[in-house]
Amino acid sequence: MANDRILQVGVLGATGTVGQRFIVLLSEHPFMRIHSLGASERSAGKAYAEATRWKMQERMPDQVRDILVKSCDPMHFDGCDLVFSGLDASVAGDIEKAFLTAGIPVFSNAKNYRMAPEVPLVVPVVNSEHMSLIDHQRRVYGSGKGFVVTNSNCSTSGLVVALKALHTKVAPIRRVVVTTLQAISGAGYPGVASLDILDNIVPYIGGEEPKMEAEVNKILGNVNPSATAFTPLPDVKVSATCNRVPVVDGHTECVSVEFATETPPSLEAIEDAFKSYRCEAQDLGCPSAPEQVIYVAKEADRPQPRLDRDAGKGMSVTIGRIRECPVFHVKFTLLVHNTVLGAAGASILNAELALKKNYLS
Amino acid sequence: MANDRILQVGVLGATGTVGQRFIVLLSEHPFMRIHSLGASERSAGKAYAEATRWKMQERMPDQVRDILVKSCDPMHFDGCDLVFSGLDASVAGDIEKAFLTAGIPVFSNAKNYRMAPEVPLVVPVVNSEHMSLIDHQRRVYGSGKGFVVTNSNCSTSGLVVALKALHTKVAPIRRVVVTTLQAISGAGYPGVASLDILDNIVPYIGGEEPKMEAEVNKILGNVNPSATAFTPLPDVKVSATCNRVPVVDGHTECVSVEFATETPPSLEAIEDAFKSYRCEAQDLGCPSAPEQVIYVAKEADRPQPRLDRDAGKGMSVTIGRIRECPVFHVKFTLLVHNTVLGAAGASILNAELALKKNYLS
Amino acid sequence: MANDRILQVGVLGATGTVGQRFIVLLSEHPFMRIHSLGASERSAGKAYAEATRWKMQERMPDQVRDILVKSCDPMHFDGCDLVFSGLDASVAGDIEKAFLTAGIPVFSNAKNYRMAPEVPLVVPVVNSEHMSLIDHQRRVYGSGKGFVVTNSNCSTSGLVVALKALHTKVAPIRRVVVTTLQAISGAGYPGVASLDILDNIVPYIGGEEPKMEAEVNKILGNVNPSATAFTPLPDVKVSATCNRVPVVDGHTECVSVEFATETPPSLEAIEDAFKSYRCEAQDLGCPSAPEQVIYVAKEADRPQPRLDRDAGKGMSVTIGRIRECPVFHVKFTLLVHNTVLGAAGASILNAELALKKNYLS
Amino acid sequence: MANDRILQVGVLGATGTVGQRFIVLLSEHPFMRIHSLGASERSAGKAYAEATRWKMQERMPDQVRDILVKSCDPMHFDGCDLVFSGLDASVAGDIEKAFLTAGIPVFSNAKNYRMAPEVPLVVPVVNSEHMSLIDHQRRVYGSGKGFVVTNSNCSTSGLVVALKALHTKVAPIRRVVVTTLQAISGAGYPGVASLDILDNIVPYIGGEEPKMEAEVNKILGNVNPSATAFTPLPDVKVSATCNRVPVVDGHTECVSVEFATETPPSLEAIEDAFKSYRCEAQDLGCPSAPEQVIYVAKEADRPQPRLDRDAGKGMSVTIGRIRECPVFHVKFTLLVHNTVLGAAGASILNAELALKKNYLS
Repeated sequence: MANDRILQVGVLGATGTVGQRFIVLLSEHPFMRIHSLGASERSAGKAYAEATRWKMQERMPDQVRDILVKSCDPMHFDGCDLVFSGLDASVAGDIEKAFLTAGIPVFSNAKNYRMAPEVPLVVPVVNSEHMSLIDHQRRVYGSGKGFVVTNSNCSTSGLVVALKALHTKVAPIRRVVVTTLQAISGAGYPGVASLDILDNIVPYIGGEEPKMEAEVNKILGNVNPSATAFTPLPDVKVSATCNRVPVVDGHTECVSVEFATETPPSLEAIEDAFKSYRCEAQDLGCPSAPEQVIYVAKEADRPQPRLDRDAGKGMSVTIGRIRECPVFHVKFTLLVHNTVLGAAGASILNAELALKKNYLS
Repeated sequence: MANDRILQVGVLGATGTVGQRFIVLLSEHPFMRIHSLGASERSAGKAYAEATRWKMQERMPDQVRDILVKSCDPMHFDGCDLVFSGLDASVAGDIEKAFLTAGIPVFSNAKNYRMAPEVPLVVPVVNSEHMSLIDHQRRVYGSGKGFVVTNSNCSTSGLVVALKALHTKVAPIRRVVVTTLQAISGAGYPGVASLDILDNIVPYIGGEEPKMEAEVNKILGNVNPSATAFTPLPDVKVSATCNRVPVVDGHTECVSVEFATETPPSLEAIEDAFKSYRCEAQDLGCPSAPEQVIYVAKEADRPQPRLDRDAGKGMSVTIGRIRECPVFHVKFTLLVHNTVLGAAGASILNAELALKKNYLS
Repeated sequence: MANDRILQVGVLGATGTVGQRFIVLLSEHPFMRIHSLGASERSAGKAYAEATRWKMQERMPDQVRDILVKSCDPMHFDGCDLVFSGLDASVAGDIEKAFLTAGIPVFSNAKNYRMAPEVPLVVPVVNSEHMSLIDHQRRVYGSGKGFVVTNSNCSTSGLVVALKALHTKVAPIRRVVVTTLQAISGAGYPGVASLDILDNIVPYIGGEEPKMEAEVNKILGNVNPSATAFTPLPDVKVSATCNRVPVVDGHTECVSVEFATETPPSLEAIEDAFKSYRCEAQDLGCPSAPEQVIYVAKEADRPQPRLDRDAGKGMSVTIGRIRECPVFHVKFTLLVHNTVLGAAGASILNAELALKKNYLS
Repeated sequence: MANDRILQVGVLGATGTVGQRFIVLLSEHPFMRIHSLGASERSAGKAYAEATRWKMQERMPDQVRDILVKSCDPMHFDGCDLVFSGLDASVAGDIEKAFLTAGIPVFSNAKNYRMAPEVPLVVPVVNSEHMSLIDHQRRVYGSGKGFVVTNSNCSTSGLVVALKALHTKVAPIRRVVVTTLQAISGAGYPGVASLDILDNIVPYIGGEEPKMEAEVNKILGNVNPSATAFTPLPDVKVSATCNRVPVVDGHTECVSVEFATETPPSLEAIEDAFKSYRCEAQDLGCPSAPEQVIYVAKEADRPQPRLDRDAGKGMSVTIGRIRECPVFHVKFTLLVHNTVLGAAGASILNAELALKKNYLS
């Protein structure tokens, strides 16, 4: 039975910041075991502890210290039931393709295949039903057991949780204006130079705004009846402005929403929709699913990144400041842990979902 | 002639952070001389250097070190041609009224009288023509030579500069969504606790959003033909979301604008409107007027608070990232020095304007 | 048997930052239960969740949300086996005396009684044998079962761990020069103003340097044979310079040590002394004792506050950069979590030690 | 006459952070004009505005925007009376040698030639008399009019100002323990990664401690009577510990000093020595010489980087917290602007001194 099965997993890009987060989260996973670690040729052949400049607040798990890092070639990952990819976009395209072609499922944090028509772009607490396209993908790619499921851009992930709750439980959404205040960890290491962000903000993150504006429609869209294509949510327009701020972890997003209804929904209905929002991963008993997907903060000055990013071990979204918008219908502020629900945590929960939904066999 | 006249000025709330900024700016002013300093009873009777916990990056000007601080009673400010008020709102109402009633013009940074129907709310590079209501105010208040002119909230000041340029030079504005990232100096001293803002942002500033949403309409509005009332700009809706970020000085504002036109103006027209924007204070030769009111930054990642806040000695606004908005017509990011154009600098330029326009006699 | 006993505990100063840390640490304690919460008259009568501005990264434990806060009068703490005090020094003196006189053991983080001749000043991983003076204290104070044990100043705690290891395992210490870089959480809330610490350091912490210089001698000293007095370590001179830096948690200390030996000990001997250091709390099986008291970091650029403060759940000290000192014998850099081993965690481990050593009966 | 002469100057490494600081300081210099700008081959041929990612708070001076950047070959700098070098140490050795061999005086911020026996290592407010070795250097190098004068490491510069005042005006110094808290701008751009320094400090700066420990002796030493060699200050031992802290500009240094006297000097004598310290650059009327070399701060919590780094336009050192040291004789805290007196400003003042002392002919 799936629940009793131990999954052997690999991590690609294991020495980078996303890779390190994967390792921290996997080190205590109830049924996943880190089997193999992949990185660049420069690191290959070294013990992980030696190859890695460890930057996590948690100590490096003992279980990975002595694992010999391999290059990211599928032949080195024979014993893996699946791999997680924290690869940089510059190399992720070719490597991930090689793995899925070799029959190894890939759960990827890279952007390369997110908008591909046959690839599910899954925020696990939002649209896990999109995995139904996996069979179609396997046929298209001729990849046997192999497939790729991507998770979204980190700032997209928090936004679509809120929008999904509103869209399905309150009223159809028409227009969204969102301004983000994003943490430096989203840029990896070394990433943002300290001279750029101390006593400063940077009002621009390359490529981030188009990604948010495009990914929302795919994620909130549907799968067609034959499970062969995604139909994006039509008529929803998103305008995103993305800023980098001096915060270590946790993206804050200020959101104004206009619904496709004449009369605006009540603030109570909106708050209820957030509070009562549940997802398939919870119902299937996935261990990484948060107990509560959305926490509603009642204090006037919350959510705050330092205080709220660890809610639900980083897998919950915290929403506060729900109030009327003088221009649209409602506005609110949300917080998402960009490297957990916004990155590695999402990939891991996606893999748990894939197991529960029998795609790993 | 006005230009040759030396103005003796007082500073109310002189020991606070706004008061300190007034003193720094006035210490090198070509025709204003610091004559008297007012603060709370606790400070009264002490030398300024002794009464003040100086927090400016500039050294305390020698000329004020030994001035004896007085309580904020008009009788102590007899020799002043005018006073600047950096008073806290909790006491500004009564004190400022006492001064104007005593015949002493008040240029105030406090919020108390901003929305009063007979008080000009003036961002000096935007709506100096609103001072034409001073005569009416004097009649209403029976204050002889006394009057009060307020400047706007710090975050309002940057926004209205941009909106005024667009509204008068491009097309009428209909809707604005603005999200701010505001510096800690806006909260005074001690102000924001470091535990609230280090590795953190605070997504709420008490009272700030309603102030922005209301002040814009008054500032962009007109004076009626008899100069006895303001007519707010009708039909312009503003939705503001205000955040506190770990930046010392300089408010960043992300703005989306919808015009009241069918076809959106071109980005070139918008950029030209910003670049070519001029104001009365420039034409009258006010020494604190910036050479260029609006700088347009062409780099993708500007404006940035640390690099751009001192543009025009803090009296210019820098605007960047001018681009189409998928939801409204145009979006851009602006930066304003919150304690210069957004506070003390605006009051000083307002006083220069009042002198040039012959209200100080 | 002691191990099976459940201790009912109270927290004095429960709404402050040290009190909040006590609550977080106690909420998962294996044999302590939070029974009563005390705070100022202003908070008394309110539910804890209502009385408190919660500032911890961990969510407020459900078990305390509805506890009615009481004033800090011993009569309200009848059901408590002991109390922890996170009181401010301005009130701790009288209140703690009232509790111990009422027969309730007090484990205090306040400075008031640290240097009192009959009060143990205990860093639990350093000098738990000082608790042998409790019987004497009870006789002097006529306090029945009541007594007070204090823990040290936060910056002292890290230093004495290192010095104890060196002094007992390498050679007697003669002179110490220490410069600290202390986190803002050490100043409580609101504590350090953000304008004082953003893009800045404050080279002064009131009273901190004399505390460090005095406390070291008492902690590293001995109890006389009749267990009626402490004999401070003679001839050890400490010079401390204390700085506040923009770090949330974790005090960094740069230490130079001169031994009372002609030839300096080898760096290997020093590293070994650190690595092999063990304490009584470990041997007695206290649940809050760290697995490893001192971690030695081998990377050139460690310890770092953000990466190392949580070592041993905040109860371990991390030491790095062990090298020869051109002026003294050896220098190194250490890191201690100032609100865990440096405050609340130390008090809790002290209480565990008192239980194991049969002082709680 | 020297005073009326206009110097044409070049800047090597002009696109880097030190180079940018040179340009800001030179843009308003009374008798130096920026003639040529040198950078790497990658930048050569481009206009300066195009080749440079400008990171200064001051706007790029108009006068340099259109200057075509050249490669760092002396033939491109024919019209220069001297060059300033902000080159990286990896290339400075060869390039600076080429310039001085070509007869062009070099004022260098790079470390390469600092400890060379015939090269003056000059902190201009401390040991300008070391320039008397220039003639000897010219003979040794056979460089005609060419020579090289280096300035010290940024953290050394502040320390030697204080030590020179004490050593010459109070008593000979025997031992110094110094711990620094250094600003990120000292590491250049991109330099320190934000993930390494936000909510963090880094207790290590590669190579910095040995540099400080060695440079002090050369700078405080003397020139032999024949002006052919430096005699380092004997018997002065310095122990340095260097930390990187989240401060943009301004190095803080905590210093303990032991004098070679039986009885310690009084704190008054020490304070007087600081206050009354003067240097040759002041007496010669160099325009970049600070009015006051050392400011003594009397407030308990000063100097602070953000508030004191701009003292004397960054060319003064601020010293505070002068007090007895329980281990040595005296301790104090000093602050130096690391990119002005600690880098570009020192080079420029060195060039002014060279002109006044007739080495530029």
